Order: sequence, then structure tokens, then C-alpha cells
Amino acid sequence: MSNSAKPDKPAKTQPRVARAPVALADCGMARAIDMVGDRWVLLVLRELFYGVRRFDDLEADTGAPRAVLSQRLRSLVSNGLADRIPYKEEGSRTRYEYVLTPKGRDLGVVVAALTEWGDRHLRNDPAPVEFIDAEGGAALHLAFVAKSGKIVPNARVGVRVKAKTKKT
Amino acid sequence: MSNSAKPDKPAKTQPRVARAPVALADCGMARAIDMVGDRWVLLVLRELFYGVRRFDDLEADTGAPRAVLSQRLRSLVSNGLADRIPYKEEGSRTRYEYVLTPKGRDLGVVVAALTEWGDRHLRNDPAPVEFIDAEGGAALHLAFVAKSGKIVPNARVGVRVKAKTKKT
Repeated sequence: MSNSAKPDKPAKTQPRVARAPVALADCGMARAIDMVGDRWVLLVLRELFYGVRRFDDLEADTGAPRAVLSQRLRSLVSNGLADRIPYKEEGSRTRYEYVLTPKGRDLGVVVAALTEWGDRHLRNDPAPVEFIDAEGGAALHLAFVAKSGKIVPNARVGVRVKAKTKKT
Repeated sequence: MSNSAKPDKPAKTQPRVARAPVALADCGMARAIDMVGDRWVLLVLRELFYGVRRFDDLEADTGAPRAVLSQRLRSLVSNGLADRIPYKEEGSRTRYEYVLTPKGRDLGVVVAALTEWGDRHLRNDPAPVEFIDAEGGAALHLAFVAKSGKIVPNARVGVRVKAKTKKT
């Protein structure tokens, strides 16, 4: 049990809960991981979030093999994260481009969380992109916020079990 | 090119940037994905964030095969995301438990982003856990915040290229 007394000093900023507070299948995170917890899916989501729409551009920007990219785009569409929209250019056959649905667009928080963490801990130079308010252009960052509007530092964040717990 | 004029109506809330604004290798998100963009790593990080520390508990809670769990824990330690700390119980051999480093703990934002998104879009019942301020217990959620403290709705968030761009 993680909450039994132990001789080593536990980090003060590491809040504890009883172990296995939530059955795996019950956890929103586990479900989210099953849908988007894949390198290629996340890179494609990043591109779509940036406004890239076309297969060839997605292929060039992510470096995904074509068959992998096709499969990931199909899964994004079937999971309701992206729409597949036909377009036709002069003298070409009908092609398709991909645009995030509101559900997919809401994953911008995940894209931003990974980007901010990677920029903070895995880079030595200034971050190449920043998240902004599309109305007005103010730079934004992700933060834990209370209903009161108070921002709480990441190191002070814990978890609380709300529902009756059950074990997987 | 994603920014060429197209007949279909682009979503108003989908800000665009020139495609491939950031070379893949240059992107904090791509680096973060290389380190944590894996189902098992993310599930183990969730458990560590919840305060679970021991191999057998991590195995039970994530359902990871033992060899996979060992490998993932080794990579978390070698990447500086978790510390491996010896402990010894009466009559047992020395064992090890795993505690997030500050760098690993900072991934709580990624855990929260996936959890909140999964709870919002993939569940029909109330979320079983909530993120809280460890000092005072106020419920928290992740939000995009400007320096002024203003919270900006997810649908209004865009990206801006800061550095000189280069192509992968």
C-alpha cells in the first residue's frame, strides 16, 4: 500500500490518495489514452490544431509513413475528432482534407500540455511557438485554476476521489 | 498548402498558421511525445501522480505486463522523471519504490489534460476524481490563462510562431 508508513522521506509536495482510487476502465484518462495515446495520433492532432489540413502536408510535417497516416486519420474521423471534407482543385480529382471537430479541437489542451512541458524540460532555447488568444493575440499558458479564478502552482496540485471507488 | 483559399467553410474558431511552422525535431511536443507518448508510460505516470509507489501496486493498477512495467520504470528513471528509492520491510529483502521528480511531477498537467478531456468527452457519468489544491482543497481545472490572469476559452486558442521557422 502506498499509504503505509515508510522510512524514506516522502516529498512534501507529493499528495497521496489511497491506491487504485479509480478502476482503470472508469478513468477518463485511460479512455483518452486508448483514443489518442499514440505518437502518430498526437503529432497529427498537433498539425490539425496548427491548421494543417491535407494529407501530403500532414505526411511531410509528421514524417508518418503513408499507411500509418491513413489509418490514424481514419481513426480520428471514426472517433469524431476530425471531419473529412472533400475539395477539388482545377484539373484534379476530388481529394479530402481534415478539420478538427469541436471534440478534437478541445484536445488542444493536451497538445499544449505536452508542448509546454517539452519546451520547459527538454529544450535549452526559447520555444518556437506559443499559444495565443485568437482574439487580441495575448500569449497564453496552461494553468490549474480554482473556481475563484485563483491560479495554483503545479507542484501544489493533488487529486481527490469523488465517486465510490472500485477495483479493476 | 493549408492556407490556400478553399471552397468549404473553414471553422471560425480554427486559427491558421503557415504549415510546418516548426520543424518536428524543434518542437517541444515532439520531444515530449518521444519520452512519454506511450500508453503504459502515461498510465504509470498517472499512478505515480496519484501517489502509488510500489511495483506490485503499479502492476495491479495499470494492468501492465511485468516486463513492460519494468522497462517503462527504467526509462522514467533514466529520463529523470522518477527516482528509485530503496525500502526494506521486516523480514524482506530490500525493494524499490518510485517517486516522481519535480520534472516528472510537472507532467501532472499532461495527466490532467488527458483526464479532463476524457471525462468531458468519453464518459457519461460524473468524473471519479478531481484535481485539487493540496492547500485548502479547492477543486481545480486546467485553463488557458493570459499574463493578466484572464482565462480564455479553449475554442479561442490559436498558435503563433515565435522563432525563425525551418522545415524538417
